[in-house]
Amino acid sequence: MINKLIENIKQTNAPITVGLDPMMRFIPGHIKREAFEEFGETLEGAAEAIWQFNKGIIDATYDLIPAVKPQAAMYEQFGIPGMAAFKKTVDYCKDKDLVVIGDIKRGDIGSTSEAYAVGHLGKVSVGSSFHYGFDEDFVTVNPYLGSDGVTPFINVCREEKKGIFVLVKTSNPSSGEFQDRMIADAGNRPLYELVGEKVAEWGSSLMGEGYSYIGAVVGATYPEQGRVLRDIMPNTYILVPGYGAQGATGADLKHFFNKDGLGALINSSRGIIAAYTNEKYAKYGESNYADAARAAVIDMRKDIAENAL
Amino acid sequence: MINKLIENIKQTNAPITVGLDPMMRFIPGHIKREAFEEFGETLEGAAEAIWQFNKGIIDATYDLIPAVKPQAAMYEQFGIPGMAAFKKTVDYCKDKDLVVIGDIKRGDIGSTSEAYAVGHLGKVSVGSSFHYGFDEDFVTVNPYLGSDGVTPFINVCREEKKGIFVLVKTSNPSSGEFQDRMIADAGNRPLYELVGEKVAEWGSSLMGEGYSYIGAVVGATYPEQGRVLRDIMPNTYILVPGYGAQGATGADLKHFFNKDGLGALINSSRGIIAAYTNEKYAKYGESNYADAARAAVIDMRKDIAENAL
Repeated sequence: MINKLIENIKQTNAPITVGLDPMMRFIPGHIKREAFEEFGETLEGAAEAIWQFNKGIIDATYDLIPAVKPQAAMYEQFGIPGMAAFKKTVDYCKDKDLVVIGDIKRGDIGSTSEAYAVGHLGKVSVGSSFHYGFDEDFVTVNPYLGSDGVTPFINVCREEKKGIFVLVKTSNPSSGEFQDRMIADAGNRPLYELVGEKVAEWGSSLMGEGYSYIGAVVGATYPEQGRVLRDIMPNTYILVPGYGAQGATGADLKHFFNKDGLGALINSSRGIIAAYTNEKYAKYGESNYADAARAAVIDMRKDIAENAL
Repeated sequence: MINKLIENIKQTNAPITVGLDPMMRFIPGHIKREAFEEFGETLEGAAEAIWQFNKGIIDATYDLIPAVKPQAAMYEQFGIPGMAAFKKTVDYCKDKDLVVIGDIKRGDIGSTSEAYAVGHLGKVSVGSSFHYGFDEDFVTVNPYLGSDGVTPFINVCREEKKGIFVLVKTSNPSSGEFQDRMIADAGNRPLYELVGEKVAEWGSSLMGEGYSYIGAVVGATYPEQGRVLRDIMPNTYILVPGYGAQGATGADLKHFFNKDGLGALINSSRGIIAAYTNEKYAKYGESNYADAARAAVIDMRKDIAENAL
């Protein structure tokens, strides 16, 4: 799947993933009205609104982008109907030949991590049958529990030819609280470097063509750390959140890429899916939110090509 | 909810939570057969088997225990039908007046963490209505992303009078890989101590009667670290996994409790729900798996009372 991701990136010439994080306040009134008319102001109504909103975004952008990153939390908040909308979104994107990165940030130990891996990337056995649960192509994984938590994902990735992105240095303001602490028994280097080294080590056991199936998450909001981590993890694809709404620009992304122009996949969520709420794209209006998203993807691709690559 | 948890513990005289982690291989043949007859060897069939298995365990133990801890991964692996079985289990346990700890180990940033918090502990707004998604009483939270990831949960806890348990030192063999690293700029103390200090700080802003709504997870498999963390977090309830199948015994739990006999909640999953597969309870046989679970709860309560309290 890392090979397919890279192929899609080369074809679209856009190292971009659109974050499908549909918050109710970004969903245009006409979509909500129709969904609530059919299902009421219920969890089912919200799930229908999310799904219709996503479908509009996907239809308007799928030919421009290699991948999407639905954020599980934004669906899970609407309970079972929300999770069903997540699954529907995953399937629809795969039908459009997009690589789907489930941003689930799961992580547990042993058989429990295995269950998450099986449920999101692999197939679960029921009697003598096997079934796919959510069936994303990649998922994000939290490393706090160490190798016991990550290895079961790697095993499922090996079997399914799928991948993960392990959180290394996250994009949020307080990510340094624990991730930046200086480790005495590792030459006074920050924790995220040690996590990066582990990701490189895990990844070396499961290589695609030039890049590993085991990727990393490093926030665009920390360009200097991105540079260091790029060196520590030369064969690791880096999923980079924080562009756009979180404040990072094309120039901040320079060091996340390798000399081959590959190695980084930049995510934008609100900057794309809620582009119509941005003054720059206000002319599209709420009802043409999907066209605004398409315009924002084109601008993002240009910004990266001109300032980062 | 922390007050209710403590009240339940006092009433049952059992600082115990039963981990409802239904793996297919522990589910007796007759339950699987009936479920598969009705739904086939499908995700729905697996979900029905899990639910019937859980119901048996709950019916046989609810009068002896204060709380249960369903492990989300074990349901999520069966996709949407699995998550529906999770929700059914949560609701059934709450009807039995059990405190429900959703072991979800979620953690993200800002509005995304808020979405998880709202979906699992709070209510989500849909138009002018509000709806509960999964509606557990407590959930477990991963701290790797720092305060940005945890504060949204605390805000929802304040509003709903519910609680969280933050991972501090996990029970698995590789938990030390990152959690035990010595932090140079904190007097060469391990990372888990710093996380413990943060938990105490977060918790001080949301106190119940004597204990905070913000708890911690510390593995029974690390009794010495448990002693240190008990001192660092005197008003924090500690959720303690690792008893039984993972190897810890009653004597290992001594330092997790405060002098008031409170402050720790010991989880056992396989040791209870799969007790019938243990030689000690083999006489019950597979079909009486629930009676075996009840016997194992009684023995666990005795072990803790005699060796830990």
